[in-house]
Amino acid sequence: MTERRRITPVILSGGSGTRLWPLSRTSTPKQFLSLTAESTMFQLTVDRARDPARFDPPIVVSNTAHADLIEDQLKKAGIEGGQLILEPMGRNTAPAIALAALAVDPETILLVMPSDHVIANVAAFRDAVERATPLVERGWLATFGITPSAPETGYGYIQRSTAIAPGVHRVTRFVEKPDLATATDYLAQGDYSWNGGIFLFTAGTYLDALREFQPEMVEAVKRSMDASYVDGARTYPDTAAFAASPSDSIDYAVMEKAAKVAVVPVDMGWSDVGSWDALHALATHDALGNAFQGEVHAIDTRNCLVRSDGPMVATIGVSNLIVIATDDAVLIMPRGESQSVKKVIDKLKGISHATLDLFSRRTVGR
Amino acid sequence: MTERRRITPVILSGGSGTRLWPLSRTSTPKQFLSLTAESTMFQLTVDRARDPARFDPPIVVSNTAHADLIEDQLKKAGIEGGQLILEPMGRNTAPAIALAALAVDPETILLVMPSDHVIANVAAFRDAVERATPLVERGWLATFGITPSAPETGYGYIQRSTAIAPGVHRVTRFVEKPDLATATDYLAQGDYSWNGGIFLFTAGTYLDALREFQPEMVEAVKRSMDASYVDGARTYPDTAAFAASPSDSIDYAVMEKAAKVAVVPVDMGWSDVGSWDALHALATHDALGNAFQGEVHAIDTRNCLVRSDGPMVATIGVSNLIVIATDDAVLIMPRGESQSVKKVIDKLKGISHATLDLFSRRTVGR
Repeated sequence: MTERRRITPVILSGGSGTRLWPLSRTSTPKQFLSLTAESTMFQLTVDRARDPARFDPPIVVSNTAHADLIEDQLKKAGIEGGQLILEPMGRNTAPAIALAALAVDPETILLVMPSDHVIANVAAFRDAVERATPLVERGWLATFGITPSAPETGYGYIQRSTAIAPGVHRVTRFVEKPDLATATDYLAQGDYSWNGGIFLFTAGTYLDALREFQPEMVEAVKRSMDASYVDGARTYPDTAAFAASPSDSIDYAVMEKAAKVAVVPVDMGWSDVGSWDALHALATHDALGNAFQGEVHAIDTRNCLVRSDGPMVATIGVSNLIVIATDDAVLIMPRGESQSVKKVIDKLKGISHATLDLFSRRTVGR
Repeated sequence: MTERRRITPVILSGGSGTRLWPLSRTSTPKQFLSLTAESTMFQLTVDRARDPARFDPPIVVSNTAHADLIEDQLKKAGIEGGQLILEPMGRNTAPAIALAALAVDPETILLVMPSDHVIANVAAFRDAVERATPLVERGWLATFGITPSAPETGYGYIQRSTAIAPGVHRVTRFVEKPDLATATDYLAQGDYSWNGGIFLFTAGTYLDALREFQPEMVEAVKRSMDASYVDGARTYPDTAAFAASPSDSIDYAVMEKAAKVAVVPVDMGWSDVGSWDALHALATHDALGNAFQGEVHAIDTRNCLVRSDGPMVATIGVSNLIVIATDDAVLIMPRGESQSVKKVIDKLKGISHATLDLFSRRTVGR
């Protein structure tokens, strides 16, 4: 086996996570919650790319407000040598990744991962990363295409064409969130994957592509990093310079435009845990189809997701409900409608209330 | 109009109120909650017998644990001169009422009232009291028969026979909580009322009846009162003597056995608010049939009772639910099943938990 270049994980810790209100808040977004395990989503992300034989310590790109929280999470995960790059404001994923790419040498392979997704089959994920690596070393931009399990309309899709290496395909096109009929067609065609927002490329390849398609962005981010304030493991890019960067996602800015873009289809038990319904689907159920977390006393209760991080919750004779309780807010709605959480958020937007705690600061979003 | 004897209200402040858990607790039973109005049930009870031209200040018979709470409630209600008789333990209603009867002279008319019922039409209630008074002055024991609005199986019933005065009937019999078919028959017959646990008699008549049917009880209670410790408005009957009293309800001990027992049928908007369903029925509803109290944000919500005395509650797309939230416990169940609260209580009995707070001390029960 030839000597392989080591990989630096780049963890994007952004997103306001309104869909998991009232548990997720601006102060504690989704990645810092223990949703599918005792570990937080952030810790699970760290854990899946921590093999010291293969990975260097991660670079975390985050909102400044979460710096302490992230250092605490890294410490709890036993990670030493991790770096934090603290964005002065959100400019979407393309500039966020550029910050990390400019912090390493151009040959470094970056594994870019959102911090708030779950991957049940880490071995499959790691295997997909290994399949992509030889192409990435030859200047390809790789993305991972999640094998779709349902015609989801909440995700972007990636269509693949011919294989260019074992298990790695050239990308035909990226497509936006489709309607249900279109998504159903995609599944029937069999050559579409979900776009999970996970990428592998060298820092140099990414920055070269950015220079080609978004020269202003790469210039602004470089000026910001050149003028950054460094405090131990924390890097604070210059605010004015970063503010001058266009805001764009990596998909729009680079992946949809570049020539050498590969997709690695992978079935790895992925979920973005994007709703309470998604969490119910992922959770371990009792014999009556319930998933409980926290102090829950259920009687004659079926197919419910009941979670409390605060008051004890007692349910009697209910079914197909989602109940999420915290010390200051309780949410109750039927299963299958958890996308409606945004209706509550919209209603509360007009009300200044601590239970919202969502809009004080926008964090980087995908 | 002849000079009428004044009436002393006797307010029985007992009952553990488990059916309104998690709002009612041992430390704050139902009578101290604001359920149907801004005033508590206790204050509403005080208010309906406070005409200074007709009523003397009340005697409250209560658990010692609630002495401070009751004095505070009387103060808030603007009552001066009220007396508290603080039972060392619960012995049901017959001894509780005997304590009050022994605290006044035998000619005093006592209006005995539970502290946790609601009466919408106080004028009808006061009118019924006036109808009963002349018979009571002649040695009758009077009870008030609530005009039944449904074949309830949770109440005792009183069958009446001939009128012995305008609007006052001799009692044929008291009957236990019937099954639904029997209750339906009672309503069809038209000569049955609900037993609301409200009584009018002189102290002497009551004690004479007790001496006849429960001589041990009246002796024990008298010894207890003779040896009581008095501290201002508070009377603490002697513990050992009171403990020696048999435990029995006034219905069993006296009303079902005495000869001169009258019932005053009255339609006065009475409810014992004995369940969350009962509270939903009594509450003011919005156009979608909901009754909300506290900070509730409802979207697409119909025919629900949602009350919070703690966290904000958000509901989306639910109907016919009861949701009761406090700082440490949240209850969720369908409307129509609120009698099932006892299932939660039974489940929690085995668990030492502050949210139960129900069994630290038994209070007097009806």
